[in-house]
Amino acid sequence: MASSWVPDVSPESPFSLANIPFGIISTRDDPAPRAAVAIGSQVLDLKVLSSYPTFAGVFPALEKHESIFSEPTLNAFAALGRATHRDVRKTIQNLLSADTSHPEVLRDNAELRGRALLSQRSVKMHLPMNIGDYTDFYAGYHHAHAVGVMFRGPQNALQSNYTHLPVGYHGRSSSIVVSGTPISRPNGQILLDTAAEPKQPITGPSRHLDIELELGCFLAKPNEMGSPIKVTEAEEHIFGYVLLNDWSARDIQTWEYVPLGPFNGKNFASTISPWVVLADALERFRTKGIENKTPLQGYLKESSEYAVFDIDLEVDIETPEGDTTTICTTSSKHLLWSFPQMIAHHSLGGCHMRTGDLLGSGTISGTGPRERGSLLEMSEGGKKDVMLYGMDVRRFLKDGDRITMRGVCGKLGERVGFGECAGRVQGAVQL
Amino acid sequence: MASSWVPDVSPESPFSLANIPFGIISTRDDPAPRAAVAIGSQVLDLKVLSSYPTFAGVFPALEKHESIFSEPTLNAFAALGRATHRDVRKTIQNLLSADTSHPEVLRDNAELRGRALLSQRSVKMHLPMNIGDYTDFYAGYHHAHAVGVMFRGPQNALQSNYTHLPVGYHGRSSSIVVSGTPISRPNGQILLDTAAEPKQPITGPSRHLDIELELGCFLAKPNEMGSPIKVTEAEEHIFGYVLLNDWSARDIQTWEYVPLGPFNGKNFASTISPWVVLADALERFRTKGIENKTPLQGYLKESSEYAVFDIDLEVDIETPEGDTTTICTTSSKHLLWSFPQMIAHHSLGGCHMRTGDLLGSGTISGTGPRERGSLLEMSEGGKKDVMLYGMDVRRFLKDGDRITMRGVCGKLGERVGFGECAGRVQGAVQL
Repeated sequence: MASSWVPDVSPESPFSLANIPFGIISTRDDPAPRAAVAIGSQVLDLKVLSSYPTFAGVFPALEKHESIFSEPTLNAFAALGRATHRDVRKTIQNLLSADTSHPEVLRDNAELRGRALLSQRSVKMHLPMNIGDYTDFYAGYHHAHAVGVMFRGPQNALQSNYTHLPVGYHGRSSSIVVSGTPISRPNGQILLDTAAEPKQPITGPSRHLDIELELGCFLAKPNEMGSPIKVTEAEEHIFGYVLLNDWSARDIQTWEYVPLGPFNGKNFASTISPWVVLADALERFRTKGIENKTPLQGYLKESSEYAVFDIDLEVDIETPEGDTTTICTTSSKHLLWSFPQMIAHHSLGGCHMRTGDLLGSGTISGTGPRERGSLLEMSEGGKKDVMLYGMDVRRFLKDGDRITMRGVCGKLGERVGFGECAGRVQGAVQL
Repeated sequence: MASSWVPDVSPESPFSLANIPFGIISTRDDPAPRAAVAIGSQVLDLKVLSSYPTFAGVFPALEKHESIFSEPTLNAFAALGRATHRDVRKTIQNLLSADTSHPEVLRDNAELRGRALLSQRSVKMHLPMNIGDYTDFYAGYHHAHAVGVMFRGPQNALQSNYTHLPVGYHGRSSSIVVSGTPISRPNGQILLDTAAEPKQPITGPSRHLDIELELGCFLAKPNEMGSPIKVTEAEEHIFGYVLLNDWSARDIQTWEYVPLGPFNGKNFASTISPWVVLADALERFRTKGIENKTPLQGYLKESSEYAVFDIDLEVDIETPEGDTTTICTTSSKHLLWSFPQMIAHHSLGGCHMRTGDLLGSGTISGTGPRERGSLLEMSEGGKKDVMLYGMDVRRFLKDGDRITMRGVCGKLGERVGFGECAGRVQGAVQL
């Protein structure tokens, strides 16, 4: 792929010309949230670009949607479907390419460049989508298995439905925040592990605050209520991907979750990375997921085994003292179920799937000891210290800890990545 | 309370002058959804009323919100808070009262009457709110106990957390439909109850389609993310109430629900009644809920025992042959937890609660054999026939069955009720 004429696109940048992720920005000069793409250390303001007088005709696919990039979310753009996303991304790649076929539009137009190309440091990032519903799956096989061993032993680690269907639950869409938003430690009801029986709950700040490393998938085209989405057509319903940290309060979750599933242990916050990497940008990184030896129901059978993505994932923890340790290095390929399978299962009964809905993969862990996507696994259920730089240790998160997730694939100069999915823990509010 | 000058407000009407519920209507002449209130067999179009030239000054509380009743949902009105709802409802009661202090505005204004008062039969009802998140609780004690006995026996009927906190789970907001919307029988994965082990799942239409009789509560004022809502302040966050039929596919639910809770067994559809009965309209019908002998955590302690409402509830089933049987008659008072307690618990960890969020009470059942809010209970787990008129029987729903829920309180001439929460089952789509 050609390089970009945009200055300072370093070979390590996750925002190469091969990526072109979409997000929602605002600036001091124009505080109205609007669409942009990331390129190197800059962003290209699509509202400014698409409303420039000489720009008419550059996005033929958007001719009837003139103000689509002036909207405060990407929903209307996502709803136009994969063919339009592909077309628009290619046009932007052309405009930003050193050998662009339209140099007059942007490359050689100093006035527009000055107005539309902004330093990433100068923009504020917002939630990219209006999220109607958020669903969290549990497709990370090694995570589900490791947690199952902790609670039920190795013989019964996985429930009997686990390899038959993508287990998931409805999350809380109001809890999704963009990278950088501080995370308040939740208060909750917690059953203390005392000798006296029956054990009594107390109310107070969670003591077992944890992270979950996930991939998030935003939906583009909706279905009609009552109409299942076929697994072989599900790709057409996908807009793009983000990193997702599904913060979890393990002690609250343990006491509340029978029989209806996680609730307050999950609904205080989930952080996503701000840039939506379009589905097309990840196509080159397809690989096989974890083999499922259970015979699949017809509605879950895919036409290709290359159903998941091999994205290098990393989790850093920065302590309040400023020491940073990478506590997890793994890949997004460690899934038993692909997003098309999750979509086909989710809509099997006719569930209405809307543009902007977010699906989480479930926690992604590999098989090795440094490949675990949650502190619950790293600390073996809170029983062992996780060693950090600076002679520090953790079993769960402390106030002041900052977690940063990163994901990237592709070689130098052509990297496709997500930027940071970060959040710092702050103390619980006084009840 | 005075009577209304509006013709045909029968003493049996759930929409007496003492009610004034809010909804969203459209008509053939004006297909744009907009706000209205119900009175007897009529509706009062609030868009027409509030935009009438001589109307200025009648709603002083809405002076800065001139077009609030022209919006397609009630969210903006709900967000103004309890004091405004109370004020606007009182003004409408005055305008519709036989001895109104402002006869010139509507009672004696034939032209406006002709335009603003419409027959309920001539209007189409829409979802009243834009629902950000939907949460379903499990506060119906007798239902939870009966279902627990079926699955775990009388000794372990209730999980140990049940009397300590209002158990609930996140539902699917996209699944909420307004009364009258047809309900497609969902397809799903179902584990057949065969002798061979291990049992194998199949994919097909649910065979155990059920209803759940619930009360739904819409939120008005939001909280700030991270800030719990105190139980003693929760009433200020409530807009009003609807009836809720949380259609459930028991066979899908049984196979999918471990360990993360109900999913496809619930997300295909939930029906609500179209008129939101304002919280103030139900104040007179407060009563004590079910006594909870477990010592409560501080954040769940209410200042009054009169925390639930005594609303007479009824469920009718109409068979495809047209025979109607009332299969349940009970009261909304059979709750262990009040909505203020549910709100306080839901927001304890800082969960963001938004205007328009919907909370379900959980299935409401009384103690008697004709007071059961689900077929699962009526048929004792699908083992016994429920007798219907016309020599018919049911254990679960058949295609063509129509379910109608009703709720009403107060004496003749002053009734406060919900109108119908109805839906007819249609056959599953071909996969």
